Amino acid sequence: MGGASLAAALPSHLFGAPRNERVGSVVILGAGMAGLTAARELEARGIDVTVLEARDRVGGRVWTVRGGDRFTDLDGHAQSVDFDPGLYLNAGAARIPSHHDGILGLCRDLHVPLEVLVNSSRSAFIADSSGPLRLRQAANDLRGHLSELLEAALRSGSLDQTLDLPTRKALATFLTGYGDLATDGHYGGSARSGLARPPGAFDQAQQAVAPRSLDQLLANPNLAGLLFEENILMQATMLAPVGGMDAIPRAIAAALRRPVITGAQVAEIRRAGRGVHIRYRDRTGRAQTVTADRAIITVPLPVLAGISADFSAPVRRAIATSRYEDSVKVAFQSRPFWEEQQIYGGLSFVGGETSIIWYPSDRFQQPQAVLLAAYMAQDAARSFARRALTEQVALARSAVERIHPGHGGDLNRPVVINWAKIPHSQGPWLEWEKDDNELDSFRLLNQPDGPFLFAGSHLSQYSGHWQEGAVLSGRRAADALVPPDVHV
Amino acid sequence: MGGASLAAALPSHLFGAPRNERVGSVVILGAGMAGLTAARELEARGIDVTVLEARDRVGGRVWTVRGGDRFTDLDGHAQSVDFDPGLYLNAGAARIPSHHDGILGLCRDLHVPLEVLVNSSRSAFIADSSGPLRLRQAANDLRGHLSELLEAALRSGSLDQTLDLPTRKALATFLTGYGDLATDGHYGGSARSGLARPPGAFDQAQQAVAPRSLDQLLANPNLAGLLFEENILMQATMLAPVGGMDAIPRAIAAALRRPVITGAQVAEIRRAGRGVHIRYRDRTGRAQTVTADRAIITVPLPVLAGISADFSAPVRRAIATSRYEDSVKVAFQSRPFWEEQQIYGGLSFVGGETSIIWYPSDRFQQPQAVLLAAYMAQDAARSFARRALTEQVALARSAVERIHPGHGGDLNRPVVINWAKIPHSQGPWLEWEKDDNELDSFRLLNQPDGPFLFAGSHLSQYSGHWQEGAVLSGRRAADALVPPDVHV
Repeated sequence: MGGASLAAALPSHLFGAPRNERVGSVVILGAGMAGLTAARELEARGIDVTVLEARDRVGGRVWTVRGGDRFTDLDGHAQSVDFDPGLYLNAGAARIPSHHDGILGLCRDLHVPLEVLVNSSRSAFIADSSGPLRLRQAANDLRGHLSELLEAALRSGSLDQTLDLPTRKALATFLTGYGDLATDGHYGGSARSGLARPPGAFDQAQQAVAPRSLDQLLANPNLAGLLFEENILMQATMLAPVGGMDAIPRAIAAALRRPVITGAQVAEIRRAGRGVHIRYRDRTGRAQTVTADRAIITVPLPVLAGISADFSAPVRRAIATSRYEDSVKVAFQSRPFWEEQQIYGGLSFVGGETSIIWYPSDRFQQPQAVLLAAYMAQDAARSFARRALTEQVALARSAVERIHPGHGGDLNRPVVINWAKIPHSQGPWLEWEKDDNELDSFRLLNQPDGPFLFAGSHLSQYSGHWQEGAVLSGRRAADALVPPDVHV
Repeated sequence: MGGASLAAALPSHLFGAPRNERVGSVVILGAGMAGLTAARELEARGIDVTVLEARDRVGGRVWTVRGGDRFTDLDGHAQSVDFDPGLYLNAGAARIPSHHDGILGLCRDLHVPLEVLVNSSRSAFIADSSGPLRLRQAANDLRGHLSELLEAALRSGSLDQTLDLPTRKALATFLTGYGDLATDGHYGGSARSGLARPPGAFDQAQQAVAPRSLDQLLANPNLAGLLFEENILMQATMLAPVGGMDAIPRAIAAALRRPVITGAQVAEIRRAGRGVHIRYRDRTGRAQTVTADRAIITVPLPVLAGISADFSAPVRRAIATSRYEDSVKVAFQSRPFWEEQQIYGGLSFVGGETSIIWYPSDRFQQPQAVLLAAYMAQDAARSFARRALTEQVALARSAVERIHPGHGGDLNRPVVINWAKIPHSQGPWLEWEKDDNELDSFRLLNQPDGPFLFAGSHLSQYSGHWQEGAVLSGRRAADALVPPDVHV
């Protein structure tokens, strides 16, 4: 996610209107984070902005589902969300890294209250054939064994050519603490890995769990789950708006001078003179038109491919050939049995078809909570999404039962999000460097096509992931039309 | 904290009244977590409970200070807390591990809302002579270098006698991912360590920070700060009550049938027949007495040593000779400049006299926050606390300035807590296995002395630390008087 090599040196002056051509009005297609960000920026620069949104809500993939919500997928399967009041699932974007200054700046400016999103809990599990393995044990037993091996290599002299004596000495000292090694350099377990018996009143001394062997750990196909928290995009501290991620797009929309026109089904995107002419059906079914000097188009490419438009042939081809991925989330309402196992937030790495379990980070110790029981992407999601919804629910339930025996039955009121089948999205994101996608398309769509500009996280370095990519791309489109130093 | 070896096999029937002697009334000295827990348990078992508390509030070392609070230390120095409304400092207990079932169970039973306490942020700093070092870089550059060295040792054959071939192969594969190594086994930096340039819109590709060398890392005297988060007591997820830790003792006290008598200065602790007789001065200065079948005494030992009491000579000696530690917290109100550096909660390890900086975990992106600018314990606290308060404030400010240049001046409205000088505490905790303390005293005070029982985290395996120790010890004292299966 967020490839390092999507760069292509295009002169930035190619993008946007020539500076001597004044833009007075802009129509923006799509009220996701890119469209909303562009609208906010342009309004602040005195531009007349119209935002058209096909859904009956803003936010796009920043979609929080709550009790009473109802949606129908592209297969025609309807789901009703039956969560208790106050409970929700962030069906799309669900976490914000602390270094995503764009989206966090919006939260600050708009006073969107944030709370901690727990992305890693040492109490969560890595599925293991030899019994439940807590992340704390996997991380610390592994560190212990590797420190022991390295310490032994130092002792044996095999690193004498690589490291000088002072470094070898400093490293040996450090490894003892790093691995929690005994004075003889042996790793024999550590309280860091967990407690078989907790310390008590008076004479109940704590006892560490028995260590897993290096072989046992390395044999675990899910061991890489350990490293999840070190991904730069997944590192603590992560954040989320209190009460649901959609607080952010709602706050942006609420601050716009001209309200977003929701329920607007765009039918035609046309050139008109030097400007644009958009035809859409409003929520009553009536045909409407908007004209403007420019259009910023944030519609997901698979959706855009189905709209009649005056794009140039290469742009049309780029849109038609770009292939989106899939991702699936299966969530349940449940009493929070995981808290009895000392889990408050974080992810368990369960492997198999359902990949992870993600525990809620808020509303601790309440009678009911929402558990994300399965979340996977890429090919795993594509094949999973081919199953019937009832089968997807059953698989997610049984994955939870494997990690939390006896608790599969606590799960009820399921919700299944197959992103490739969600209308107006048709996929969660695309990977420009996979799926036979073409970097040339990425480059082309990052240039204006006459009066049309494209924006969205799919046109950022985040390759369709992360709100930050949408914010940056939306801001770039706005800047291209009206440079930020030319405020009206 | 929480030694593993405080155990001593004392027959548990020695502790508490013989089963055939019915206890009807208990007086509890001290409304900290141990006293409150014992009171709650005993009331639930039909016992007539009186709780005397010297302070004008419950909670003991679970002390949350807010604007308008005023306190005077044992040197006679008065401080007024001038924080804005809603801001607070947890002057004592400030975090709850997710495996402390006792205290978390109380929160659940009493509906005390909890939130995440961020104990580790990858954006926080480890002080380093070669410039600000983010925790993410220290952790991941170190892992990279160690993985490279171990991979080289594997290649060189020096581990052929230690590990069999399949393990060596599995380990080599794992190390590539673990250390983010290049295909040639070299560690050349990683985006996990941080981004010198973030990914942007279109063509701004991300760029990882330049790696620090192993020598640079090992030369850092604060590198062990990396391992703080792996201490079993410090691992994510950690929790805290919304709005201040004192929500817990307040909730327990509010649920007691008979209110805690605060402002009660105990003057004498006497035996009376088979029971006890307590003389104290109430908040108006009037002499009062309480008689009861038993007393549970949770008063900190240095304070208890100054109260006239009919303890046996060995118990008196154990109380008089037990030496408490010190700990110091220096906090300021400030605008949250650290958020501009992408820090949301967690600790920076600054070394030197002030040891750490601890960032708030709640109220993100508000105009003002409370920053814990210094927190140290043991000998470091003892020597720090000998300085004048103004000097302590100045040192804490300059430590923040070193890690966050230009921001020392943002700090205002300081509060200094020197625990050894706090009335009714005279220290934060004791270490039974340090400071010439005697494990025999620990054992002795865990036995009844006639009608007197002692309780408190200082009599648990937590050696005076952690609310969990107080809860367990308070519960043990209650169980000793009225076994939990003999509810009235």
